[in-house]
Amino acid sequence: MSIIVLGTVALDTVKTPFGRHENILGGSASHFSMSARLFTHVDIVAVVGKDFPKKHIDFLRDKGINLDSLAVVDGDTFRWEGKYEGDLNTAHTLHTHLGVLATFRPKISPEQKRIKHVFLANVDPDIQRHLVDSMCSPQLIGMDSMNFWINTKRKSLLRTLRKVHIFVANDQEARSLTGENNLIKAARHLSSFGPKMVLIKKGEHGSLFLCDKFIFILPAYPMEKVVDPTGAGDTFAGGFMGYLSRVRKVNEQAIRKAITYGTIAASFNVEGFGLERTSRLTLRDIEKRLGFFKKHILL
Amino acid sequence: MSIIVLGTVALDTVKTPFGRHENILGGSASHFSMSARLFTHVDIVAVVGKDFPKKHIDFLRDKGINLDSLAVVDGDTFRWEGKYEGDLNTAHTLHTHLGVLATFRPKISPEQKRIKHVFLANVDPDIQRHLVDSMCSPQLIGMDSMNFWINTKRKSLLRTLRKVHIFVANDQEARSLTGENNLIKAARHLSSFGPKMVLIKKGEHGSLFLCDKFIFILPAYPMEKVVDPTGAGDTFAGGFMGYLSRVRKVNEQAIRKAITYGTIAASFNVEGFGLERTSRLTLRDIEKRLGFFKKHILL
Repeated sequence: MSIIVLGTVALDTVKTPFGRHENILGGSASHFSMSARLFTHVDIVAVVGKDFPKKHIDFLRDKGINLDSLAVVDGDTFRWEGKYEGDLNTAHTLHTHLGVLATFRPKISPEQKRIKHVFLANVDPDIQRHLVDSMCSPQLIGMDSMNFWINTKRKSLLRTLRKVHIFVANDQEARSLTGENNLIKAARHLSSFGPKMVLIKKGEHGSLFLCDKFIFILPAYPMEKVVDPTGAGDTFAGGFMGYLSRVRKVNEQAIRKAITYGTIAASFNVEGFGLERTSRLTLRDIEKRLGFFKKHILL
Repeated sequence: MSIIVLGTVALDTVKTPFGRHENILGGSASHFSMSARLFTHVDIVAVVGKDFPKKHIDFLRDKGINLDSLAVVDGDTFRWEGKYEGDLNTAHTLHTHLGVLATFRPKISPEQKRIKHVFLANVDPDIQRHLVDSMCSPQLIGMDSMNFWINTKRKSLLRTLRKVHIFVANDQEARSLTGENNLIKAARHLSSFGPKMVLIKKGEHGSLFLCDKFIFILPAYPMEKVVDPTGAGDTFAGGFMGYLSRVRKVNEQAIRKAITYGTIAASFNVEGFGLERTSRLTLRDIEKRLGFFKKHILL
């Protein structure tokens, strides 16, 4: 079992009420793989510049992640700077430097083209589609995006959506892509664009899954101390897709379990800056919190 | 088994994308009793003016609600006018006319003073405390409030809070009363003001219960069509307190069940204007939707 994830490997500068960290390892593919690796083998498809610290590459490799398709090219690594205030629910982007991401075209090996599970984390929808089209016979394709692409490349995003099975979006994205305020209606509307399954992330309010057969709603794990939420959505997607890749089934039971694993993985992510907490995460940590969640918090 | 509810019986004018209704029966006590009556006997303590239509009094009496302490006095009935837009999550108050509510001091009978379960729906905290002090030996006192009292009568509200067992608040109120953005922290903070149990209503995101022994989180029942959310919080509280009054126990199992009943009752409330849907509600309707909720939507 394997999953291939296309996304960003980035250098983040993050400020929250708990401190400020400069140029720490971040990016959608990094966060995704920190939780997905607990369930399945992970191949990252991404690009960094020549300025990217070797220690980060060593770190990811030490975590068992395949970096054959992590291109290192002339130029600067993608950098994001943001801050969180108040309830830490919304990231305020202070600065974005695309660097080598601007001209990125993913190239993967013949073996990687045969991987059955694919996740298109947040990058340009043209690039996402390019990867999908290069896969041999993918069985399950998940996709994330963000408001930036909804606003600037809507047509391309819709074209990519037609090619995927699961669309993972946050509530704001679901609303702005469909014009529907009601999240159930928004999820149904998104599904009409192509993906049979829609998974809406509601941050501290948990998530909502919809397909033509059932709806599943799970609250988030209650956290009293949120240190840095950066990457929580990708960590969630990593747990979710990672579990589905492990069991190689997509029935109701597997979906529910996958969402529960994603939810718990995300709860660890917010406890530290960047990959601080999830880099040390084990399946045992997850199972322990999951047991408590099911027994003492949910119905 | 009985519960006595102090609150408003009002004439509401409500505008939503689904229409506008003028001077329909509303108020916190009316909405509360529509769901509480399914589980227990309900006594309303409220005031209306001489302008209050007799048909509304007949209607409430027909529903089996005791109106011995519904005072009818010289002056105008409390009126509220509001509208909802977009996601219908927030009520925009257009007009409030206090009328006879401005000088209201509740008076109840000696039998009513011996009722064990009490709910203080949203009115002036002075009036809420006045009722609590007139009860003989209440076993369970629940209390709601609103931002208006948090902003204008904070001290009185805190004095009343010390006398109650369960505080029911929405997320905004919980945050503004404590200054805590994190809802778990806010709930803990509220509990430090006196009430052993805190129940935070999160609208479309469900609810969160906290006491020193456990936390319980339940999503809302997913509704695709919300016609008018006015009174949903009171309907929720009515199902919750009504069930606790019926079983006369306040252990973990009873609390979880009570919150689930409240959640389902509220889902019916939003399907129609005012009491349109909840006036026809039966326990069978609730059980049916509850079965579906537990089986197909929750973990």
